Order: sequence, then C-alpha cells, then structure tokens
Amino acid sequence: MENKTTGLTREVLESVIEKTGYAQLVGAKLTNYEAGMAELIVPLRAELTQHHGFAHGALVAFLADSACAWTAASVVGDVVTSEYKLNLVAPAIGDHLIGRGSVVHTSRRQVITQANVYASKDGAEKLVATALATIARIGPK
Amino acid sequence: MENKTTGLTREVLESVIEKTGYAQLVGAKLTNYEAGMAELIVPLRAELTQHHGFAHGALVAFLADSACAWTAASVVGDVVTSEYKLNLVAPAIGDHLIGRGSVVHTSRRQVITQANVYASKDGAEKLVATALATIARIGPK
Amino acid sequence: MENKTTGLTREVLESVIEKTGYAQLVGAKLTNYEAGMAELIVPLRAELTQHHGFAHGALVAFLADSACAWTAASVVGDVVTSEYKLNLVAPAIGDHLIGRGSVVHTSRRQVITQANVYASKDGAEKLVATALATIARIGPK
Amino acid sequence: MENKTTGLTREVLESVIEKTGYAQLVGAKLTNYEAGMAELIVPLRAELTQHHGFAHGALVAFLADSACAWTAASVVGDVVTSEYKLNLVAPAIGDHLIGRGSVVHTSRRQVITQANVYASKDGAEKLVATALATIARIGPK
Repeated sequence: MENKTTGLTREVLESVIEKTGYAQLVGAKLTNYEAGMAELIVPLRAELTQHHGFAHGALVAFLADSACAWTAASVVGDVVTSEYKLNLVAPAIGDHLIGRGSVVHTSRRQVITQANVYASKDGAEKLVATALATIARIGPK
Repeated sequence: MENKTTGLTREVLESVIEKTGYAQLVGAKLTNYEAGMAELIVPLRAELTQHHGFAHGALVAFLADSACAWTAASVVGDVVTSEYKLNLVAPAIGDHLIGRGSVVHTSRRQVITQANVYASKDGAEKLVATALATIARIGPK
Repeated sequence: MENKTTGLTREVLESVIEKTGYAQLVGAKLTNYEAGMAELIVPLRAELTQHHGFAHGALVAFLADSACAWTAASVVGDVVTSEYKLNLVAPAIGDHLIGRGSVVHTSRRQVITQANVYASKDGAEKLVATALATIARIGPK
Repeated sequence: MENKTTGLTREVLESVIEKTGYAQLVGAKLTNYEAGMAELIVPLRAELTQHHGFAHGALVAFLADSACAWTAASVVGDVVTSEYKLNLVAPAIGDHLIGRGSVVHTSRRQVITQANVYASKDGAEKLVATALATIARIGPK
C-alpha cells in the first residue's frame, strides 16, 4: 500500500531551508539527516525568548514541527504539516535547542512522525518538549 | 472549586508582551482583550514564510499558542502553556494573521482554551488553523 | 474547493449505528442530528465505569469520537476518524453522558470537528471533556 | 525535582483493573508490567467493532489510554488521565489488540507517556494507532 516515493536529498532539503524565511529568521540549521530521521539546531538568543527568559514555546514548536516535517520529507519527498500535538515538559534554558524526529508510520497519503526537543547547556541535553504529528504528502500519489 | 484568582489587566499583559523577545521578533500586537478572550495580530512579511511563500506553520503556532495563553491569563493571571494540539487547515496567505482565543473550562490548576487563527487579505478573513490547549496556572493556588 | 458531497441522512446513520457492535455494547443513541451537528447519549451503568466509579475515560472518548465523526458524516457522507485530541476536564458522574459535535472546517479530504461531552445528573449538565478531531472522507472525491 | 513516589505493584494494579467495570466489559488483561512500561491485551469479538467490522476506534482509545495510564502508574502510583492525542493509522483487524506504553517524561505533577496499539492476527502484529498522553498524579505531592 505504501508508495515508492523517494525522500528529499539533503541537498534539496537544505536549499528548501535556505528559502524558508522563518527558518532563516530563527537561525535553524540541519545537523543530521538520513532516511527516517532529521535533526536541527537553533542557537538561543534574546529575540527567541518569552518573558521569563526561556526559549519561547513557539520556537520549541518550530523545532518540533520542522523535525517532524523534515523526517517525513526524508522518506516521501515534498510534504506539509497537517496537525500536531506538542507537550512542553520543562523550561527551555540553554545555549541552543535541538529537535530530533523519527517515523512512526507511513501510508499512502501521510506520514506520522514524532519529535523530541532538547535544550543543550554546556554540552548537557535536557528534554523540553515532545510532539506527535501528521505530515501530509504533496504531489503525485 | 475554582480559585478567585484575578486575570492580568491589559496594561500588565502588554508590558509582558513588550518583554517577550519572540513576540517582538514576529511583530505581534494585542488587539482585543477582556476576561475570557484575547485577540492578537501579526503583519505578514517575507521573514515569516515557509518555502511556498505562505506564513510558516510555526508562526501560526505562535498565534494559536499566544491566543490560548493570553485568554487564560485574562481569567486567572500568570500562566504557562502545558500542551496544545494544532490543526493547520489551509495555506496562510494574506496581509496579516489574526489569532482569537476563548475559554473552554477553568479549574484549580489549569485553563483549557481554544483558538482559531485567520489569514486576512484585503479585509477578508479565512480560517487557517484551530487549536485546543492546556494552560497551567502559575503562583499561589 | 469543497466537494458538494451529501451528508448521510439520519435514517442511514441510525442503521449504521445499529450495525456498530461497540455502539450497541455501550448503549449509544443518536438524539439530535442535522447538517453540521450531531448529539448522542449513553445512559451510565456500572459496566461503564473506572475504579473510582466515574464513567471511564474510554467511554468519554467514545462519545467525543462519535460526536465528531457523526457530525462530519452529516455534511460529507461516509467517514473514518483519523485522529483526535481529548481533554478530560472533570470526573464524569451522573445518569448519562451527552456528546455534541460541530464542524470547524471542511476541505476536499477531511472535516475538522470539535465535540464537548457532558455528564447529566438530575437534569443538570456539566462539561467533562472536549475534543478536536480530524475526520477523513471516504469514497469518491 | 522528581518525587520519590513509588509505582503501583502489579498486584495492586490488577485489583484495580478487576474493579474497573469498563476494563471487564471489553475484556482487558494486563500482560506485561514493570517500572516504566505496561502492556495489555483485548481479544476481539463482534461487540467491539464498528460498522465495517474493524475494532472500534473507541476500543483502540481504551487500549492507548490504559497503556499510557498504567505505564504512568508503574512509576508514580495512583493517576488519572488528563488528556491525550490519538492517531488511528490503519484498520484494526485481527484476533486481538495489544497496547504498549512507555514513559517520555516525569515531573512533580504529571507523567508524559506514549503508547502504540497493535492488531495481532495469526501471530503477526501491525501498528494500528499511536498516542501521546498527559497522566496526572493523584494524592500527596
């Protein structure tokens, strides 16, 4: 039942990220990418915080959403996020945030992915959020 | 069973928004606020898009999260987002995005809120996302 | 962009419910149904509880899921639930549970619906849960 | 920051399940249980289906919810489900359903757990659903 669609190559995904204004605004970088997984990093700075000085939840959402969507892209090609659920489990404090996605299930129309977001401080990582997403496939089915 | 906590005043919330780096980065403005509802607006610009030129899903998430959290703040005071689910239902194209929240249920520890996000183009609004959130109360219970 | 698919008639939906073993097991009855909304009721009994004596969360989920799916069916015909998020906001105590759904957004492939579940005791209703769902359309598109 | 609360023993959890009317109604059995994980099984029968003959989504929700809650109970003791998101990814066809939970994050007030639900047919398992849940701790904090 699953399509034999090819995932995006790292080169193509990186050129997509370069053309994604929001990814540039927050300073996202793809740090790991292979079929079935994607990892990105965002260095923290004052513009990315909420009023308690932690990384803003919407930045955490960006990492979760991107990790989920890019992970799906790694197996099926061009995609768009349909919906996700995000649990913010701890204050996001540190030098940078890391998002890591993995595939839960692939079908004809969509890929279910999950992602964890970590805050890294002086090299130590702490889980700050977890997400479960439905990523829709685009193009020829 | 519900606490008699007072919501944040508009003046206090606006000063919180001014100290929220991320809200300043994306250019959010509180446009409507009373007990049980909050509305915000973000003018669209190239830095806020994804690679198809639509407003990025993480910006839509910012509006949904903020509308939910600020709505909760309007009834119980200081809060933090615990978790939410976001459905992105249409491409976010237009001059600006509008987020509007309302209260579903208030209890001793949390407020369940929902929000819709609209893209406005030449004065016409279109629903682009809907969210359901758990917003946790902070401080004396 | 939206299809002109016709919703299920009340007669057809009721015959579907009669053939749904699980709906019969829990004793569900359709009490209100028109284009864009559906309401169902389940009388409470000991077999439907959890260990504190409240209605079990999975029964509440049944009401939320059914209200969401039947509401979608009322506008687009045959459907299947893709995913939902459920917030259980208060203990479900009473004579019966009531689920009520409404449409948030309809597109070519799916209907986003929301539902509230109430516990009714001596005629007074109390909100016990709220849900947001993606209901997929089946058949000719 | 984490409490040193003890999880429920298998004996206590099994006595709770025996007193849970709904678990008895659907015929659930705890098949695996240790600190940080729980597995349950429900044999399929006609009363547990929807109108296409598959296991009903609300039964799948029961397995997901129970796996998540019992997994949380294995690490922190008495709990109640606050909210979850469930993705139904394939028709649930088979001899029985299996739910398996694991812990994502534990904090002072809640445990974030995830669960997968599988349909087993002639010994072969297939993923039919995945869930992400917030399980609240009850009692002395």
